[in-house]
Amino acid sequence: MTIPLKDSTAPNAKAALARLEQLKSQLNLTPSTVSLQAPKDMAAERAAADFSINALARLWAGGDKQYEMQQKAYEIIKNDPELVVQPPRNILEFTRDEWREFTMGQIYRVAQLLQEYGHDREFAYEIGKAVNVYSESFSMRFFVHESLFRNVINMLGTKEQAQKWNDDINNLKVYGCFAMTELGHSSALRDIETCATFDLATDEFILDSPSVTSTKWWIGGSGQTSTHAVVISQTVIKGEHKGHNWFIVQLRDKVTGELMPGVHIGDIGKKVGHDGVDNGWIQFRGVRIPRSNMLQKWVQLERDGSYTPAPNPAVMYATLIPERLSLIIVTTQLVGQALTIATRYGVVRRQGSKNEQIMDYQSHYSQLIPAISFMYMVKSAASTIDSQFEVLTAGGEMNPVDYLNHMGDMHAVSACLKGLTGWYGSEILETCRRACGGHAYSAYNGIGQIIGDWGVMTTGGGDNVVLLQQTARILVYRLEQKLENDEYPELKFKSSTHYILRAKEYLATPSWPVHDVTDAIKNLRLLEDGLNAILVKRLNSIRQAMAKGKVLNDVLMDCVRVAEMHCAVFLFSDAVNKYGAPHGPEGIDKGVYSIMHRMTALWGLHTLVRYSDQGFKEGFISPQQIKAVEEQYLETSKSLRKQVIGLTDAFGFPDFVIKAPIAKYDGNIYEPYFETLLQAPNSVGKTPYHEKYIKPLTERPGTNN
Amino acid sequence: MTIPLKDSTAPNAKAALARLEQLKSQLNLTPSTVSLQAPKDMAAERAAADFSINALARLWAGGDKQYEMQQKAYEIIKNDPELVVQPPRNILEFTRDEWREFTMGQIYRVAQLLQEYGHDREFAYEIGKAVNVYSESFSMRFFVHESLFRNVINMLGTKEQAQKWNDDINNLKVYGCFAMTELGHSSALRDIETCATFDLATDEFILDSPSVTSTKWWIGGSGQTSTHAVVISQTVIKGEHKGHNWFIVQLRDKVTGELMPGVHIGDIGKKVGHDGVDNGWIQFRGVRIPRSNMLQKWVQLERDGSYTPAPNPAVMYATLIPERLSLIIVTTQLVGQALTIATRYGVVRRQGSKNEQIMDYQSHYSQLIPAISFMYMVKSAASTIDSQFEVLTAGGEMNPVDYLNHMGDMHAVSACLKGLTGWYGSEILETCRRACGGHAYSAYNGIGQIIGDWGVMTTGGGDNVVLLQQTARILVYRLEQKLENDEYPELKFKSSTHYILRAKEYLATPSWPVHDVTDAIKNLRLLEDGLNAILVKRLNSIRQAMAKGKVLNDVLMDCVRVAEMHCAVFLFSDAVNKYGAPHGPEGIDKGVYSIMHRMTALWGLHTLVRYSDQGFKEGFISPQQIKAVEEQYLETSKSLRKQVIGLTDAFGFPDFVIKAPIAKYDGNIYEPYFETLLQAPNSVGKTPYHEKYIKPLTERPGTNN
Repeated sequence: MTIPLKDSTAPNAKAALARLEQLKSQLNLTPSTVSLQAPKDMAAERAAADFSINALARLWAGGDKQYEMQQKAYEIIKNDPELVVQPPRNILEFTRDEWREFTMGQIYRVAQLLQEYGHDREFAYEIGKAVNVYSESFSMRFFVHESLFRNVINMLGTKEQAQKWNDDINNLKVYGCFAMTELGHSSALRDIETCATFDLATDEFILDSPSVTSTKWWIGGSGQTSTHAVVISQTVIKGEHKGHNWFIVQLRDKVTGELMPGVHIGDIGKKVGHDGVDNGWIQFRGVRIPRSNMLQKWVQLERDGSYTPAPNPAVMYATLIPERLSLIIVTTQLVGQALTIATRYGVVRRQGSKNEQIMDYQSHYSQLIPAISFMYMVKSAASTIDSQFEVLTAGGEMNPVDYLNHMGDMHAVSACLKGLTGWYGSEILETCRRACGGHAYSAYNGIGQIIGDWGVMTTGGGDNVVLLQQTARILVYRLEQKLENDEYPELKFKSSTHYILRAKEYLATPSWPVHDVTDAIKNLRLLEDGLNAILVKRLNSIRQAMAKGKVLNDVLMDCVRVAEMHCAVFLFSDAVNKYGAPHGPEGIDKGVYSIMHRMTALWGLHTLVRYSDQGFKEGFISPQQIKAVEEQYLETSKSLRKQVIGLTDAFGFPDFVIKAPIAKYDGNIYEPYFETLLQAPNSVGKTPYHEKYIKPLTERPGTNN
Repeated sequence: MTIPLKDSTAPNAKAALARLEQLKSQLNLTPSTVSLQAPKDMAAERAAADFSINALARLWAGGDKQYEMQQKAYEIIKNDPELVVQPPRNILEFTRDEWREFTMGQIYRVAQLLQEYGHDREFAYEIGKAVNVYSESFSMRFFVHESLFRNVINMLGTKEQAQKWNDDINNLKVYGCFAMTELGHSSALRDIETCATFDLATDEFILDSPSVTSTKWWIGGSGQTSTHAVVISQTVIKGEHKGHNWFIVQLRDKVTGELMPGVHIGDIGKKVGHDGVDNGWIQFRGVRIPRSNMLQKWVQLERDGSYTPAPNPAVMYATLIPERLSLIIVTTQLVGQALTIATRYGVVRRQGSKNEQIMDYQSHYSQLIPAISFMYMVKSAASTIDSQFEVLTAGGEMNPVDYLNHMGDMHAVSACLKGLTGWYGSEILETCRRACGGHAYSAYNGIGQIIGDWGVMTTGGGDNVVLLQQTARILVYRLEQKLENDEYPELKFKSSTHYILRAKEYLATPSWPVHDVTDAIKNLRLLEDGLNAILVKRLNSIRQAMAKGKVLNDVLMDCVRVAEMHCAVFLFSDAVNKYGAPHGPEGIDKGVYSIMHRMTALWGLHTLVRYSDQGFKEGFISPQQIKAVEEQYLETSKSLRKQVIGLTDAFGFPDFVIKAPIAKYDGNIYEPYFETLLQAPNSVGKTPYHEKYIKPLTERPGTNN
C-alpha cells in the first residue's frame, strides 16, 4: 500500500505578493551607496579565493558523487512546500503548534520520497539529509526514530529481534523513540526509577513509574508521534534487582493514535529550541509487555526466570557513543550555517572611520577564521572516527572482545568531542551573533534559531563536565599504566591517546625547544609535539595531585580543561596526518590541499594560544614564546582574511537553508531583509490595542503637545 | 480626567484548576526519596548562611526603606492580573501578539497606579520597578519613553523645551521613542542618512529617509505605541550640511492612532527576545516639523537660518552614557535571576556516585560563586558611578565646563562597564543554563527567556568591541600623558584611571612582589596593586607597539582585553574602598560586612585568574604565583559554598518573578514543574495531525509489529 499524497498547504502566494508590492510602493527603497556596494564587495571577496571553491565544496561534501547528490537534493526540496516553507510564510516565525505539525509533515513527505525513490535508496536518504540541514527540528525528530531507536534494537537486541523490527523501522510502519532520562534523573542512569518486574506466571514484564520523579522526561518523539519506545528500566526478576535493561514498549495504537492501556503521555511543551520536536513525558502504570520485548543481545532471560547479566554493564549504554558521534554532523551543519551568516554579513557591512568592511577588523577575522578552521578539522576527523567506530562494531557484528577492548578509547574520544564541540560550538555561535550586530537579534536572520536549537548539544546526551571528566580519567589512567608499568593496550586503530606512548620523553623535556615559532609552522609536527608535551605534563600534574591526596572533585576543572585540550589536539594531529606536509599527494587538488594545510596550521596555533595557560603553568612555555605564538596566530588569521567567503561558500548551504536575508549569497541584503519584515504577520497597520490601552492615556485633555 | 479601569482578562481559573486535578488523578505523583529530599536540602542550605540574609537583602535593596517599599510593591503586583500573568496562563508561553499587548497593558496599568498613588510618587515608581524585574520587556518598553526619550529632551533641549514636554512625559499623555539606528547604520552615527532640511520660508524642517538603508530600524516603542519620537538626523540649513541634530517628531495621532502624514512605520516582527517590545522601522517622507522641535541646548538655530553648532559634537550623544549605566540595573536584575535559578536548583539536585548535591561539584561552585560576587561588585559600584554621573550633569544643570572635563572619564567607565557586564553577563547566563542541565531547555524554567532578553545587552547601545576599544584608547592616551608630560587631569571624582598616577612606580616593578599569595588575601591592597601593575604594563605594551608602527586594528584584541580587565579592576578597587578592611565600620551589620568582604576578595582573585595571561605575558606573574592564586581562588570559592542560598536569597526575587518551578524558594520543585507542563496548551490529548500524517504511515498492512 502506498503512502497517500499530502494536501498542499501552500497559501495564496499571489495575493501576498500583491500586498507586498503595494506596501513597497509607499516606501522609499532607493538604493544607497551602502546597499549598492554590498553585492560588489561580495563578488570581490568570492573572486579573491586562492583555491577552487567548487573543488573544496566537493571535498567538504565527501566527494564528487556526494556533492552532486546533495546539490540535486537541495534542488528537489527547495520548491517542495511540504519540505520547505514557502514565502510569504516564514518558518522562523512559526508557533509551537505549527512547528510540531509541519515537522511531522516533513517526515511524512520524506517517507513518501523514500518510497518514490525506492530504486535509489541512497539518493532518497540524501533528500532526508538535505531536510536535516534545512531544519534541525526535523533532523532531531527523525533521528530519534531512525538512529536512536534503531541503534538500541540493533546494538542491544538479538539478531532475531533486529530482524523482527528493522523492516518496520525502515518503512516507518512503527515510529520509535528513546526513553532514557527521567524527571529526577538525567545522565546518572544508576538512579533511574522506572521499574520492569518480571511476571513469571504470564511470561510478561510489568512496567511502572513508581513516583513523580520517575516520569520519563524529554523523550523526543513521544509527545505526539511515537507508536513505540525503547525504554531503559530497572529490572526485577523473582524479587531480585538485576540492574538496567532495555525494553520495547508500544505507546500508541497504530491506527487510532490512542495511548495504550496504562501509558500516560504529554508533550513537554515550549522549549528554548527544537520547536518541531515533540519531546514528551511518559508514565507507565502497570503496562504489560512480553518477555520477548526485552533486548537480549548481551543479557538472557529464560522462560523460567533464570537471568544472565551483561559481561560489562557499560555495553548497555553502547548506543550513547554513536549518539555523541552524530553531533559531529550537527556541529558542521548548525555552526557552519551561523559562520556562513556571520562571514557573509561581515564582508558586506562597512563601518568605521575608513568605512572598512567589518570583516577587516581584528576582532572579526581573528575570531571567525579559527572557528571556520574548527569546522574543517571536525569534518576531516569524521572519517577517522567513523573507521574507529567500524572497528568497534564490525558492521553490526559487535564482536564482544573487540568491542570491550576498544570501548574505552571510543568513549574517551566521543565524550571529549561532545564536550569540545558543544562548548566551543556555542561560543562560536555567540561570536557569530555578535558579529552581526543588532541584526542577529532579528529572528529572521536565522542565528537566534540556530542558537536555540544548539542548546541541546551542551546539556543533552550527557553533561559535558561529566563527559570531559570521564575522558580525563581514562587519560590519567593510561598515563599511569604507561609510567608505572610501561603498559599500553594493543589497539586496532590509532587511539587519540597515542601520545602517551612517548610520555617519558615529553616529561623529560623541561621547556618547549622551539626558538623561532615560525619553525613550528613550517613543520607542524613540532607544534604537535609541543601540544602533546603540555598534555602529558598536565595529566601528570593531575595524577600527582591525586597521588598526594586530592580527590577528583578538587581537580575537576583541571580535568575538564585538559580533556578539552586533548580533543583539540586530537583534531589537530588527525589533520596533520592528512594535511601536515607542505605539499599534498597526487590526486588532491593543489589549491584545496593548500587551504586545508593552512586551516590545519591555524587550528594548531589556535589550540596552543587557547590552552597557553596549561603550558605556562607547567613552565613549559615562556612569556616570549607565548607572545610569539599569539603574533603568529594573528598573522595567520590575517593572511586568511580574503579566503573567508571561499571557505564558507564551500560548506554549500543554499540561501533557503540559511534563511537569513543579511547573509544572501549575492550580497544584495537590504531590500530582501526589509521585505521579510513587510511580510511578517501583523507587522503593519493600526495597533490592535490602540483603543484599549493607548488612546485612554494620550487623548486626555490638558496636554502641552 | 482619570484613566479608565482596564477590563480584567483573567481566564476561568476554576475550570482550569478542575482540569488540572483531573489530569493529576490519572498519574502517579507519589513523592520519591529524591523529591522529599529537595526541600530538606533547601532548608539546610538556607540555615547554613553565616550572615543575616535579611540584613544583606536590605543592603542589596539600597536600605531599609527601599527594601520595605520593594516588598510591598511585589505584594501588590503579585496578584494583579494586569501586571502579572496568573495561572494557568504562562507568560513564558505567550505568542508575539500576546506579549506586545500584555506589555502595553502593564504600562497602562502602571500609568493608572501612578495616578492612584499620586500622593506617593516614589512608591508608585517602586511598583514600576517591581514590574521591571518581572518582565524585561516591560522594563525596556517603558524605559524608551521614561528614560531615553525623556533624557534626550532634558539633556539636549533648552529649559523651555524640557518644561514644555516633561508634564506630558510624566503623565504618559505622549509616548516617546528614541530613533537613532538605521537599517544600514548602527553605532557609526557619522554615516546615518536620515536628513532634516530647514525650510526658511515656513520656519520648518522637512524630514526625509532618502534610501532603503536610511530606514530607522529597531526603534523600541515605535512599532505600535509611540506618539512621538526623538530623531537624530543629518541637518541641512541653507544648503549646507551642519552635522547631526535631534528633533522631536510626532509619529501618530494621539486620538486615532493613525500615522501622521508622511510617516511610515512597521513593527520589526519576531526577535530573539523582548517580545513585549514593539521595536519598529520608520520612514519619513517629507514630514514637516516646526523649528522649535529641534533640540537646542547645545546648538542654536535662529529664525533667519543662522546656526551655532555644539561646542563639542560628542555632547550630542550624551544620553548614551546614562543609557549604558542603566545596564548596571538590568545586569543585576536579569543575571541575578538566572543565578538564583541555577543556585537553587544546584542545591536541591543530587547526582553522582555519592548522591552529591550538584552544587558540591567544583565545576558548579567555582563557576557560580564568582559570578554571584560579580553581582555584588556591580551593585556596589552603582552608587559610586551614580555620584560620578551627578558631577557630570549637576542635577540637570549640565555645566558645560564640568561636563566636558569629566565626559571622557565617564565615557571610559560606562563603555567598559557595558562591555564587561554584557559579555561576562552572557557567559554567566550560559553557565547558569548548563548548571541546570536539560531542565533549563524547558521554556518554563525561565533561563531561556532571560538569555533571549539579554542578547540586546551585547549588541545594542553600542557594540562592545567598539566601546572597549574606546576605553582602551582613553587609557593609553592618559598613560602617555602621564609618562611623557607627567600630566594627569584635575577631576572632581576618583577616576577609574586613578592607578595611572602611579604608572612609573608600577613600570619599575618587574615582578609581583608577593611571595605568599595568602598575604594578598589578608591585605587586598596588595592584590589591587598587582592588578594595577598588570594594567599599566599591558597599556604600556600597547602604547609601545603603536609607537613602533602597529595600527590600532593590529592591537584591537589586546585593547579589548585590557579594557575588560580595567573594568574588572575598577569594580574590585571600588569594593576594596568599601569592604577591603578586615573589619567594617560602625553601623554596618558585622555578618553583612564579612560576606561583602569575602565577595570582594573572591572578585579580586577571579580577576587575577581570569586575566592571568596578561600578567604572564608581561613576565610579571610567575607560574608558581599563578598556580598559588588559582589554588587560593578555588579554596575561597569552596569556602563560600554554603553561602550560596543566602547570597542569592538576598537578591530578593519572589517565585512569581523568577517563574522557574525548578528554582522554587521552598525546594519543592518536582510536582510544580510537572503541573506547569500539564497546564501548557495542547500538551495532552490526541495528536491533532494523527489522521493526516501518522496513521497513513503506521496503519499500512504487512508489518511485523
